Amino acid sequence: MKNPRLKQQIEFIVEIDRLKRIFRQNVVIGTEEQENDAEHSWHLAVMAVLLTEYSAEALNTLRVLKMLLVHDLVEIYAGDTFCYDEKGNLDKLEREQKAADKLFNLLPSDQAQEIMDLWQEFEAVETPEARYAASLDRLQPLLLNYNTFGHTWQKPGITSQNVWKRNQLLKEPVPELWELVQEIIEDSIEKGYLKRF
Amino acid sequence: MKNPRLKQQIEFIVEIDRLKRIFRQNVVIGTEEQENDAEHSWHLAVMAVLLTEYSAEALNTLRVLKMLLVHDLVEIYAGDTFCYDEKGNLDKLEREQKAADKLFNLLPSDQAQEIMDLWQEFEAVETPEARYAASLDRLQPLLLNYNTFGHTWQKPGITSQNVWKRNQLLKEPVPELWELVQEIIEDSIEKGYLKRF
Repeated sequence: MKNPRLKQQIEFIVEIDRLKRIFRQNVVIGTEEQENDAEHSWHLAVMAVLLTEYSAEALNTLRVLKMLLVHDLVEIYAGDTFCYDEKGNLDKLEREQKAADKLFNLLPSDQAQEIMDLWQEFEAVETPEARYAASLDRLQPLLLNYNTFGHTWQKPGITSQNVWKRNQLLKEPVPELWELVQEIIEDSIEKGYLKRF
Repeated sequence: MKNPRLKQQIEFIVEIDRLKRIFRQNVVIGTEEQENDAEHSWHLAVMAVLLTEYSAEALNTLRVLKMLLVHDLVEIYAGDTFCYDEKGNLDKLEREQKAADKLFNLLPSDQAQEIMDLWQEFEAVETPEARYAASLDRLQPLLLNYNTFGHTWQKPGITSQNVWKRNQLLKEPVPELWELVQEIIEDSIEKGYLKRF
């Protein structure tokens, strides 16, 4: 390849194929197959297109989409950390920052910086775009759990309190979706998908 | 759910989870697992973010991303048609239009129309955004095949002529990527991943 910049970009594009092999706790609806990060990222991005009207703040949708498309890439080297795994979450940031440095620097430096900025913005949850993206990142697994008889919620130690707490993030960025989440949690308890306490 | 509009949107979001179960001809790099449409759509969207500089025409990147995120949704009801299956491609458009009518109309009518417009624009390949998106939709499986010893290209009847013809679409929208494709085809023939004739 004559163009070294294009060569780097293609190497990165090939490397991130591995996101399709990073498995999450959820299963795909109607199957026993664990969802992977690439599927999850796609699903979030479509949700982001369809649900902007519920954002309490004006959004740059392009930035939201870019953020969601790359938000889990670090897991290629750092692995998926289960959101209710307290021990795993202690060194999560350090592991993921290392992974980001390694992975994003496969790209030409301007693009490495762009992806790093998007990832850090997502992680910090301080901009309207990041708050909206983070809200969807919580709503999507909740929808999957609700439609798979509470698959992930059946794991030992998980109760409605955990789910409630984790989803409180939606309250301000997307108030109407937060109402929906509360309804789903309540209905899931009634249906036996989720333990109340 | 109090809001019937949100109810429709959530039903659609849950229904399209099925895209994760629509399998393609390619395998995921380093595995024997067939890639699915959700993974493919995510991969294309990231490529679209990274490769805009190669487009011969100015692009609305947000429109490109929306188009790529939804371009294969019709396959949930219509199935994946192998690009080199001449018979399957005869009634492809009719099957997919039916699927689009059924699937997109789960959404509130304004959003059903938006997604229909995006899908039809992608299929028509007449705008800069659609030409760029369609180019990536050809480049991505080529990259996967090149990195899996020509997995799909090993099927009976496929030669470099088929691959060459299919990828000619890249010539004008992304000339530098078309050069790359030609290099990859030539190298794949040399490596025995692809039959010359």
